[in-house]
Amino acid sequence: MEDIPRSHPRYWSLVTRQKLVDAMKEGVVVPQGLISHGRGEAFDYILGEKSLDFALEAERTAVAAMLLAKRPIISVNGNYAALAADDIVKLSEQLNAPIEVNVFHRTEERVKVIEDFMKRHGATRVYGSECQKTHIPGLESARGIVCVDGIYSADVVLVAIEDGDRTEALRRMGKVVIAIDLNPFSRTAQAASITIVDEAIRATKNMISMAEELKGLGKDKLRDIVSSYSNRRTLSMAFRAMLERLEYASSKGIIIDLGFRDEVNV
Amino acid sequence: MEDIPRSHPRYWSLVTRQKLVDAMKEGVVVPQGLISHGRGEAFDYILGEKSLDFALEAERTAVAAMLLAKRPIISVNGNYAALAADDIVKLSEQLNAPIEVNVFHRTEERVKVIEDFMKRHGATRVYGSECQKTHIPGLESARGIVCVDGIYSADVVLVAIEDGDRTEALRRMGKVVIAIDLNPFSRTAQAASITIVDEAIRATKNMISMAEELKGLGKDKLRDIVSSYSNRRTLSMAFRAMLERLEYASSKGIIIDLGFRDEVNV
Repeated sequence: MEDIPRSHPRYWSLVTRQKLVDAMKEGVVVPQGLISHGRGEAFDYILGEKSLDFALEAERTAVAAMLLAKRPIISVNGNYAALAADDIVKLSEQLNAPIEVNVFHRTEERVKVIEDFMKRHGATRVYGSECQKTHIPGLESARGIVCVDGIYSADVVLVAIEDGDRTEALRRMGKVVIAIDLNPFSRTAQAASITIVDEAIRATKNMISMAEELKGLGKDKLRDIVSSYSNRRTLSMAFRAMLERLEYASSKGIIIDLGFRDEVNV
Repeated sequence: MEDIPRSHPRYWSLVTRQKLVDAMKEGVVVPQGLISHGRGEAFDYILGEKSLDFALEAERTAVAAMLLAKRPIISVNGNYAALAADDIVKLSEQLNAPIEVNVFHRTEERVKVIEDFMKRHGATRVYGSECQKTHIPGLESARGIVCVDGIYSADVVLVAIEDGDRTEALRRMGKVVIAIDLNPFSRTAQAASITIVDEAIRATKNMISMAEELKGLGKDKLRDIVSSYSNRRTLSMAFRAMLERLEYASSKGIIIDLGFRDEVNV
């Protein structure tokens, strides 16, 4: 890992980027994944780089749905693995949900690389290169491949930074799809049953704590949480949050006051 | 270059991405640069992927400031080179401003690679690997290195897709900093004297045309353009443009109706 000065005002953002770059060198992340991450960063900037109320509500509902599920599963792609492997493993244990490696730019070698990466981070139940495979109906080519006993048979699927087309196909199969996606405009955000508009690392950490708490509740209480949820409301609130932050910014223009004078002297 | 179908609705965006991926393979762009690009893409998407009025005004003011400058300079990093090398060379000629290769992730080899890349695209006055070097005060490590007769001595510096910490350090040296940055929240956008919230290729092309026009004006007219400019106003207008797009979305929540029911059944 490159040396990033601790004093840099965006130290954690730079460290997170470095994680992805390192994972790209290992073959876990493809270059296109870095561009996706950059897009997410932009939306996170607008949202203020924290887990807002609507995100916390979606995360809580997601945990309740995963705990109620007969066959919950966590779908892991290159970016999600690179960002949050340790936390994904913890969440998988808390929810008693296995992991399936599922990538947009699919080669069996890359699936194996991510599978090994997750196992090095402590994952024990991983569907990957060696499962019995089938296809998601309506998804052509390699990106439709899933494991028969994994995503294909799951009733609730957690995806993160996912392709919109695939999210839609999973919903058409009748599955509950929980999507972590910072862009509420995206097809994934729009198609999911529960959209978590939050950064993947923060969202996963939040869900680990919530799972610890919600595991103590009965099924009825969990069902109450799930039945009172509306994804339309969540998405409205996400757009609304972006709006409010921009309203403040538009009234100020300069929101980080660094003490410079607002005039140009040449 | 990967084969991108012309019929794709985001063909030019995909071609631009591919330019960056190819430039990464040449060593011009670092992987972190792809992340920066993704971030820019998101803001450009929200802004409607065109040069809005406030951007045109900032570009015009930037050209006036560069024409008034005693020692103007164009700072070129990997992304800016990969995206716009030909146009940067044209702008450099129009403004009679040399180029300095200046990168965040600095190695002397990479500076040489970008220098050679710019020269292959026709650049003649390039400060790069062989200049007499010094440090920008207050910037730790290799990223503070600049050429004594280049950026260090310049009064007006044009940067694009620049690090915020360095933009700030350049302003603390008393320089006029013109920054091309699609993200008005960024430290660079906030710290610059003139912030061009526009895509780097479009902004550079616009400035080439504007330079042709403004070169005919006297210094008094150029000073009028510069003195009536407010970066606070420009940033406010950029935030306002984003705001308007979000107002519609927040009233709807779901803006792509895929026909799924808004309830979670587990």
